[in-house]
Amino acid sequence: MSDPNRFTAIYEIRPCADESAEARARDITLEQTVELPAAVVPEEIAATMVGRVETLEPIDTGVWQTRISYPLAAVGDELTQLLNVLFGNISLKHGIRLVDVEWPEALLATFGGPGCGISGIRALTGVHDRALVATAIKPMGLSARDLAAHCHAFALGGVDIVKDDHGLANQPSAPFDERLLRCQAAVTDVNAAEGGSVQYFPNVTAPWPTMMARAEAARSAGCRGVLVNAWVTGVDALSALREEFGLALMAHPALTGTYFRPDHGITADVLLGDIFRMAGADAVIYPNHGGRFGFSRALCERINDRLRRPLAGLRTALPVPGGGISVDSAGDWARRYGRDTVLLIGGSLYAQQDLAAGARRLNEATRQAR
Amino acid sequence: MSDPNRFTAIYEIRPCADESAEARARDITLEQTVELPAAVVPEEIAATMVGRVETLEPIDTGVWQTRISYPLAAVGDELTQLLNVLFGNISLKHGIRLVDVEWPEALLATFGGPGCGISGIRALTGVHDRALVATAIKPMGLSARDLAAHCHAFALGGVDIVKDDHGLANQPSAPFDERLLRCQAAVTDVNAAEGGSVQYFPNVTAPWPTMMARAEAARSAGCRGVLVNAWVTGVDALSALREEFGLALMAHPALTGTYFRPDHGITADVLLGDIFRMAGADAVIYPNHGGRFGFSRALCERINDRLRRPLAGLRTALPVPGGGISVDSAGDWARRYGRDTVLLIGGSLYAQQDLAAGARRLNEATRQAR
Repeated sequence: MSDPNRFTAIYEIRPCADESAEARARDITLEQTVELPAAVVPEEIAATMVGRVETLEPIDTGVWQTRISYPLAAVGDELTQLLNVLFGNISLKHGIRLVDVEWPEALLATFGGPGCGISGIRALTGVHDRALVATAIKPMGLSARDLAAHCHAFALGGVDIVKDDHGLANQPSAPFDERLLRCQAAVTDVNAAEGGSVQYFPNVTAPWPTMMARAEAARSAGCRGVLVNAWVTGVDALSALREEFGLALMAHPALTGTYFRPDHGITADVLLGDIFRMAGADAVIYPNHGGRFGFSRALCERINDRLRRPLAGLRTALPVPGGGISVDSAGDWARRYGRDTVLLIGGSLYAQQDLAAGARRLNEATRQAR
Repeated sequence: MSDPNRFTAIYEIRPCADESAEARARDITLEQTVELPAAVVPEEIAATMVGRVETLEPIDTGVWQTRISYPLAAVGDELTQLLNVLFGNISLKHGIRLVDVEWPEALLATFGGPGCGISGIRALTGVHDRALVATAIKPMGLSARDLAAHCHAFALGGVDIVKDDHGLANQPSAPFDERLLRCQAAVTDVNAAEGGSVQYFPNVTAPWPTMMARAEAARSAGCRGVLVNAWVTGVDALSALREEFGLALMAHPALTGTYFRPDHGITADVLLGDIFRMAGADAVIYPNHGGRFGFSRALCERINDRLRRPLAGLRTALPVPGGGISVDSAGDWARRYGRDTVLLIGGSLYAQQDLAAGARRLNEATRQAR
């Protein structure tokens, strides 16, 4: 029944009052491929290149679910064109939500997925039997020296991954190059003294040539991973970084939020759980339930599931829930989400008088949650 | 009154029932800069780096407008970080819409804007006194030879810019390299025979290293401009292409649509009219009023205005309304939008029996609309 030359995207559609669900679904098949009215599409192209409505059924009042298959030949072998086929033009319409994709093995193999994956990040950090703890150095405006002092305290307390805040770029207060060297030195010093494997992930997000130069600088400085705002750079940045540097990649969801509306967009689990992973993220930050953002607990679990599920030959990736986790609740979250999780704690840690002591409590909480 | 070290973003906010407008606005100032609760932000950072609510006033039932100033030091000199400050994390919240930015000259000078601008594209095409006409070669699935035949017909009919459909990437049916050479040859032949200056803009959208290689190939083949799906690649791709190749850049809005919701996101005129232009687009495609997408006529005019308005030393850019324009209505649209417009006509042209004759009628319509 399944055509090896096609793959299937699943959309929820909410047709307007004057429009049938059939018409809306058919419109997607044309808009996302040939971009022509059906009447002027040559017959052989209609048969081979146009999307095909495989199923269409009502699932709620005014809401339909449709499975649309596209030819692999519409994508070729590029992630950019895959995004374009899945949601490029229809992003400009309304009432269309991409809720799942049945990824064909050929595409997965092409895009490659995580270069390190969960096992790779566990090997880097030396943490094998519990959830990992991460935090961000901040706020912007501090000097590189002060940020490095935070790194030192967090490393001393046993945070496993100390990352730059995603808004630390190349501001005059703490230029990238200086911050990189000072922070990495702080972590290296603690590791040498304590025998640990704390990792510092600098934020390499930047316009392209600069981003690649920063990743190279990070590798030269001894970093084993970096942070990227992957929707700001274009998500294929993850693939390029994976290919070029062999660094672990933690992806931040900045700018993705408009896709996550209930009636139009791409679900967060598909975008952050599948697409970020396919592109090469080894760890994916998302706004945890109960924090400053509105993700439900169920949605968070769905993201976790997609990052960790078997998916052809792709490595698994670590979910990194951030927000809503305090030093006190970290153990609970570790139990809820399971050990293949990175708990990202920011504000609550900074509210502690002593950063290292706060970090120590966090680390202890994840040990007890094993 | 205005601090030269800060710049101002204007948001419409729709606070939840249990939240004051003041709290929502203050939240943005923290979320977009230091990402910490106010209580743990060091005093000197709070005074210098945190956003500042300059004004806050109700503009409709449940809707407030707030002017928030950010320090230039929060951005540094990178477009990626500018996007992050303006809307990165708050994209994940709701009821926040970026409706305007008072761009500081320092940032505009840094980002640079169009490399060719309206005058540059007029010089390329030799069209100085009327609206330009563009079309796309399609559909995907045709061979490079067949697409080149379309190029030939359109060039013969006097289309000024023949671009690849934005979904033509590197599909097996018409691989990029072959398509580039055949299509450019078709246009060059017609120009040589007829003394015209029709331009072929191939779509160079691709993962990064490949995108740059395609732009280089386009330049080598004699193309003077290219098409980019600039939100798919990351919008800073425009700047890199401008710097590296000196090609005219036409930007397509694929994947941007989720930002254009009335209650949350970034207005289309700010994103496509200002940000795309600042990044380096010489011409910006948007879905025209009356077409398959829901842009109002007023919104289209606002995009036109932003692309053409004086903005520090930046070159102006050409609006490229696409959709909803037929061979018959092209003259009317040219009169409505003015001569500094590129009318992009696809489906209606393909519905003509004779593509060259249809293109000729289009060209004639814009001449009569002068």
